Amino acid sequence: MSIITLTTDYGLKDHFVGALKGKILSEYSDAVIVDISHYIDPFNTAEASYIVSASYNSFPKGTVHIIGVDLEANKENQHIVMQWNDHFFIAADNGILSMLSQKIIPQKIVTITIHDRLHSEATDLDVFVKVACHIAKGGALSVIGKEINSLKQVTDLQVIVSEDATELKGNVIYIDHLGNVVTNISKKQFLEYSKGRAYEITFKRTVIKTILPYYSAIATSDKYPVKYYEGEKMAIFNEAGFLEIAIFRSNPLTVGSASTLLGLNYRDLVSITFKN
Amino acid sequence: MSIITLTTDYGLKDHFVGALKGKILSEYSDAVIVDISHYIDPFNTAEASYIVSASYNSFPKGTVHIIGVDLEANKENQHIVMQWNDHFFIAADNGILSMLSQKIIPQKIVTITIHDRLHSEATDLDVFVKVACHIAKGGALSVIGKEINSLKQVTDLQVIVSEDATELKGNVIYIDHLGNVVTNISKKQFLEYSKGRAYEITFKRTVIKTILPYYSAIATSDKYPVKYYEGEKMAIFNEAGFLEIAIFRSNPLTVGSASTLLGLNYRDLVSITFKN
Amino acid sequence: MSIITLTTDYGLKDHFVGALKGKILSEYSDAVIVDISHYIDPFNTAEASYIVSASYNSFPKGTVHIIGVDLEANKENQHIVMQWNDHFFIAADNGILSMLSQKIIPQKIVTITIHDRLHSEATDLDVFVKVACHIAKGGALSVIGKEINSLKQVTDLQVIVSEDATELKGNVIYIDHLGNVVTNISKKQFLEYSKGRAYEITFKRTVIKTILPYYSAIATSDKYPVKYYEGEKMAIFNEAGFLEIAIFRSNPLTVGSASTLLGLNYRDLVSITFKN
Repeated sequence: MSIITLTTDYGLKDHFVGALKGKILSEYSDAVIVDISHYIDPFNTAEASYIVSASYNSFPKGTVHIIGVDLEANKENQHIVMQWNDHFFIAADNGILSMLSQKIIPQKIVTITIHDRLHSEATDLDVFVKVACHIAKGGALSVIGKEINSLKQVTDLQVIVSEDATELKGNVIYIDHLGNVVTNISKKQFLEYSKGRAYEITFKRTVIKTILPYYSAIATSDKYPVKYYEGEKMAIFNEAGFLEIAIFRSNPLTVGSASTLLGLNYRDLVSITFKN
Repeated sequence: MSIITLTTDYGLKDHFVGALKGKILSEYSDAVIVDISHYIDPFNTAEASYIVSASYNSFPKGTVHIIGVDLEANKENQHIVMQWNDHFFIAADNGILSMLSQKIIPQKIVTITIHDRLHSEATDLDVFVKVACHIAKGGALSVIGKEINSLKQVTDLQVIVSEDATELKGNVIYIDHLGNVVTNISKKQFLEYSKGRAYEITFKRTVIKTILPYYSAIATSDKYPVKYYEGEKMAIFNEAGFLEIAIFRSNPLTVGSASTLLGLNYRDLVSITFKN
Repeated sequence: MSIITLTTDYGLKDHFVGALKGKILSEYSDAVIVDISHYIDPFNTAEASYIVSASYNSFPKGTVHIIGVDLEANKENQHIVMQWNDHFFIAADNGILSMLSQKIIPQKIVTITIHDRLHSEATDLDVFVKVACHIAKGGALSVIGKEINSLKQVTDLQVIVSEDATELKGNVIYIDHLGNVVTNISKKQFLEYSKGRAYEITFKRTVIKTILPYYSAIATSDKYPVKYYEGEKMAIFNEAGFLEIAIFRSNPLTVGSASTLLGLNYRDLVSITFKN
């Protein structure tokens, strides 16, 4: 079995996602296709990057991930395949994959060179389908591309460590459907710099002094039911390993969300300071 | 073949549903996964309950239903599996399954006891995935849990029968995407109490005197085209067997919906009175 | 393998789409089910028609397409199956399939006659499921229906060619999730009438003089990065072969969309005039 995942900004109103699946099944009828998200903010490569890095690990090794965001090949962006951590990622070289490649060195990167082997009306997506099916069937990267050494790097939205190592300055990189706010500060970075010291998380005019191990850990007292804690703000490392500012059992329509209640938006500053 | 269905409040913007499918396929590559809904109102167990009870019956016996709504195990809610009507339901014991168990006695209920067999970072959802795949592969409930006798009951939103059996007082339990309004009064209850008597359905200031057998039955006269009846209010027992107040060919954006036109919201009273 | 595609106006909030899949898998466990769209504007047969005609071709020959829009059989609309271009389409005869049948003559059309063979509570959708699975398994049309010669025709929203063949008058038939505007003028029609002449596309107070071969062809100068061209209006024949008025890298929330910026709505006039 070979899984092909899809992450796009196509939405689900139009026929594009369905047509994409039809093309994959036409090329490779045994493909197992899984949607990651089709609601990436249009052309937002940072958001696509977070969603892919947060989810790839739930799939078996060998899975092929198609990233259909800002995918048109143009004078600036080539089509590439990155073999990384035993998964395969197909995207335009627009920075989407650099978030992954900064953490672990890719096993192989190729620029796709099969464009002239397809029919003249073939779209960028047709190229991705052809390549995805080739890899999912067990085909070699060398057949469909030319090896390169590096990706286009994104320098935007990186965590900054203060010179004295007492502060990590991060940013909001994603707001989920409950309005919970994800930052680019990873648990790994936190552990590397905290060294058991006390800490404070600060953003806007808010301070949080504890990172909880799981959501309902906020219900600390046996005197009250869990419901009593609804609407309280909290910090947690989410399943993807990033610092998340959340509202316990948030509901944007009723209780309100971390984003709305705490005034946190995409790119806003969130920092952790360590006490000596 | 073993089907695993998913009902959650995760939405489709984030990667959570895709990651959940990846975990299931990692554990059991032959699983056939079907989405029921990922747009349950966050933490709304009543809505989850209705959606599951309205849809389970469309699946073959033996299907495993994962309900990812308010699923965090905490001091109040255990994780359970209920075998009921030859289907399997995995949920937190927060009342979601009591709507089903009130109608037919469950075949078996177990509290899940495998939490300590998973890796230390395992989430509540990882537990559900493990259990779902175990059951879908044909594994016994006794291997993953300890039998219990009863579920947490929900007493909220129950139909009340008047002492003289001339009135059924129900509530709105769901509003669908067309704005049609579903009540908790079942066709079974209606038939039990109506005994062929005339009846009136009343809510707010509206009265409806007929429950139609199907939507287009509202087009009673051959003099007019079906289109003539668009926008008319009507009552029907929906496919799930519950009394529904609808607008014929409603469209919230144009004609308007039962919810908006008739002022019916979640929990509002709808009653049926029988004439002697 | 047999693919069954789904195009409906059910939305994804309710359980209807999940239940439909459960019914298909109950009837035919090897079916491969692909969603085309469940966000057709309620009862909008023109939109359903466009979505189906734009996507069917991405699927292998023999694919069965269920169209669950305005599907209730009533005194005006029968249930039909159309075999067309080696695909099968199941719908109510409400005009949805006439957009296809105008282009290429159907291979066979039958009215479905199995209604009395199903259980008494069977819905219109149950009929479609039964028929779709029968065909997907390779069953003959003659077993489930009676051959007819023609479909209900739709005369609304047709391209009008001026008497002197210097103008094509079309209409907006679809607005996609990025707000790009699709017209009913096809590339085939354009090529048939243009005969190499210069042309102007006009709508509202806007004129466009070039139809681009692909989106990023708008970035004509090497002096500027591609980003420089974001927000520019453009015309293109989309993958479905229809004239589309787009905004380069439109985002309804930021840059704005063709629909909002150019004031184009469903049914609005878009014409092409040819210069002699």
